[in-house]
Amino acid sequence: MKKKITLKLIAKELNVSISTVSKSLKNSKEISEETREKVQAFAKFYNYKPNNIALSLKNKKTKTIGVIIPEIVHYFFSKVIFGIEHIANQRGYNVIIGLSNESFSKEVLNMEMLANGSIDGFILSISKETLEKRDFHHFNETIAQGMPIVMFDRVEDSIKCDKVIVDDLLGSKKAVEKLINSGCNHIAIVTTKDFVNVGALRTKGYILALEENKKALNDSLILKVEDSELIDDNLTQLEQDIEHMLISNPEIDGVFAVNEIYALTVMKVARKLKKRIPEDLQVIGFSDGVLSQNAVPTLTSVSQHAQKIGERAAELLINRLELEDYEEEEMELERYETEVIETELIERESTK
Amino acid sequence: MKKKITLKLIAKELNVSISTVSKSLKNSKEISEETREKVQAFAKFYNYKPNNIALSLKNKKTKTIGVIIPEIVHYFFSKVIFGIEHIANQRGYNVIIGLSNESFSKEVLNMEMLANGSIDGFILSISKETLEKRDFHHFNETIAQGMPIVMFDRVEDSIKCDKVIVDDLLGSKKAVEKLINSGCNHIAIVTTKDFVNVGALRTKGYILALEENKKALNDSLILKVEDSELIDDNLTQLEQDIEHMLISNPEIDGVFAVNEIYALTVMKVARKLKKRIPEDLQVIGFSDGVLSQNAVPTLTSVSQHAQKIGERAAELLINRLELEDYEEEEMELERYETEVIETELIERESTK
Repeated sequence: MKKKITLKLIAKELNVSISTVSKSLKNSKEISEETREKVQAFAKFYNYKPNNIALSLKNKKTKTIGVIIPEIVHYFFSKVIFGIEHIANQRGYNVIIGLSNESFSKEVLNMEMLANGSIDGFILSISKETLEKRDFHHFNETIAQGMPIVMFDRVEDSIKCDKVIVDDLLGSKKAVEKLINSGCNHIAIVTTKDFVNVGALRTKGYILALEENKKALNDSLILKVEDSELIDDNLTQLEQDIEHMLISNPEIDGVFAVNEIYALTVMKVARKLKKRIPEDLQVIGFSDGVLSQNAVPTLTSVSQHAQKIGERAAELLINRLELEDYEEEEMELERYETEVIETELIERESTK
Repeated sequence: MKKKITLKLIAKELNVSISTVSKSLKNSKEISEETREKVQAFAKFYNYKPNNIALSLKNKKTKTIGVIIPEIVHYFFSKVIFGIEHIANQRGYNVIIGLSNESFSKEVLNMEMLANGSIDGFILSISKETLEKRDFHHFNETIAQGMPIVMFDRVEDSIKCDKVIVDDLLGSKKAVEKLINSGCNHIAIVTTKDFVNVGALRTKGYILALEENKKALNDSLILKVEDSELIDDNLTQLEQDIEHMLISNPEIDGVFAVNEIYALTVMKVARKLKKRIPEDLQVIGFSDGVLSQNAVPTLTSVSQHAQKIGERAAELLINRLELEDYEEEEMELERYETEVIETELIERESTK
C-alpha cells in the first residue's frame, strides 16, 4: 500500500516545519517564493490531499457559538456574555445561550440539544452540581466528537480544552492584604462551600494573606455560605448567618466577601448593628458590578474584568474553529491554553 | 369529489360543539358515554382522519422554546428569563436564548437561525431598532410558517400573536400621583425617546397624572434620554443631562425615572448637588430590582413583576404549542390574548 502523503512527511522530506508546508500550500506571502514553489511542486507530484472526511465535517459550519452558563440573574455572567457577543459579532459569529440553572442534568440536556448540529463549539462555565458530582463525561464526549469547548471561571483541570480563568487566589490575597495594610487585625471571610473551585481558591488566598502577614487564623471568622450565589429576593438566611458571626466576634474589623451580594449583605447587617463603614468595619467584595459602584458607601472590589474574560474565551474558540483542517489533523500535539485574566483591586469608600 | 369530513362537519351533523367532538374522539370522560359513542361511530363510518400534514409537522417537536431579548446586562430581562425557565422546566421544555443587542438585523438573524428546526416557538421582546424602523416582516413570516410567537413588554399591536404587557401607563400614573400626594409640586421625568413604546407609555402616564391633578406641564422637566437603557460603565452623559436639568430648574422636588439606572443616577447627581432625599427631592423608579433594593436610600419603585411576565409568556406559548392539531386547524377564529400584568408601587426611603 502506498504510504499516505501528509504535511508531516512533506515537511520531513524538505527539511522545513509543518507550519511552513501548511502556509506554502495556502500560498502565504510569509513564506519565501522559493520555498512555496518547492513545497507546492512536491505536494502536486505526490498528489497530496487534505483529509476529506475531516474537511467535509469542518465545512458544515453553523457560524454559531453555544454558551452555557449556570445563572442568568447574575451580573458577572451577563458581562461575560456581553464580551463573547462583542468578539463573535466582529468575527461574523452568532451566539445562542442555554442555562444550566446550576443543575447537572440541565447542563447535559442543553449541551446535547445544542451539539446536535446547531453550533460549532461551546463556551461554558460549569454548574455547581456538576462540580459537586465530578461527572464530566458530557464535556469529554463533546470534545471527542470534535466539537471544541472553551471553559471560563468555573473550570475543571482534567478536561482537555482551552480555559480562561481569573487569578482568584492572587486577587483574594491582594484584597485581604489591602485590609491588613489599612489596619485591620481581625478579618473575616464570607465565602462559598469548597466544591465551588473559585470559592475555594478565594478562601485559600485569604488564608495565605493571613499566614504571610503572621495573622492568626480563626475558624469562627470563616463563614461558608450554604446557598448559591444567586441574586435572590430572599436573603434572610445569609443575613442571619452574617449577623451571628459579627455579634459572636465583635472584634471583627474587616470582611472580605467573595461576591457582591455577600459584600452588600455584610454592609446591610453592619448598618443594622450600628457599625460605621469604613471606620468600624472595612469591607471588600469580589467581582465589580453595578452593585459595587452604586452601593452607599461605594464598595471596594476585586474586579474580574468579566467582559475581557468573555472576549478572550470567544477569541480562543473562534481561533480554534478556524484552524485550517490539515494543520489541525496533523499537529502532533494538541496544545490547549489556560489564560489567566488578572484581577484589579478597585478602591472605593468601604475601605480606609 | 367526496366532501372531506372535518370536526366541524361532524359537530354540525350531530348538533354538538366542535370541542365536544374533539373530546369525544379522544374518549374524554368529560363527555357522556352516549355522546362519545355516537361521535366515534359517526367518525368511523365516514372514515374521519385528522389532517396528516399538519400532524406530521406538529409531531416534529423539539420541546424547546427560543427566547430573543434585546439585552442581557439588564435585571428586568434576566428576571423574565428566570420566569420562562421556571414554567418551561415544569412542563418539560428547554429554553435557548438569543440576543438582538437592540439591532434589527441581529434580531432577524437570530430568529432565522432558531426557526430553522431548533425550536417550537418564540418568546421575545422587540429591539429598539426594529421599533424605530417599524419593519416587522420577520415576525409575520415566522407566524405565517406556523411557528407561534409570544411577545412581552416591548410589543407591536399589529402583529397577530399572544402578548404579555405591563400596565406601563397606569403604573407610571400611580407613581407620579404618589409624588403629588407626598407634597411634590414640580415633578420631572427622566424617560426614553418616544419610539420605545414602553417609554412613551410611561411618559403618557406622567402627563396624565399631572393633568388630572391640575399641575402645570413644563417641557423643560421632561428629559428624554438619547442612550439605550443598557447598564453601561460610562454614565457620564446621562449624569450631565440630569445635572443640567436639576440646576436649570431648582424648583424640582420630585423625579420619576422610567428605569432603575436613571433613578439611581438621579440620586447620585442629587447627592453631588447636596440635595437631601427625600427631604429636598423625592425619587421613584420603574422596575424593581436589586439596585432599588440595595440603594441608599432604598428606592421607591414601580415593580413590573418581571418573573411573572416570563411565567405567563411561557404558559401562553406552551398552551398554544400543545393545542390539539385538529382542534387548531378547524377553529374558525384564531384568538390571541393580550395579558396585562399589573404593576405595584413598592414604597421605600426615597419618598416621604
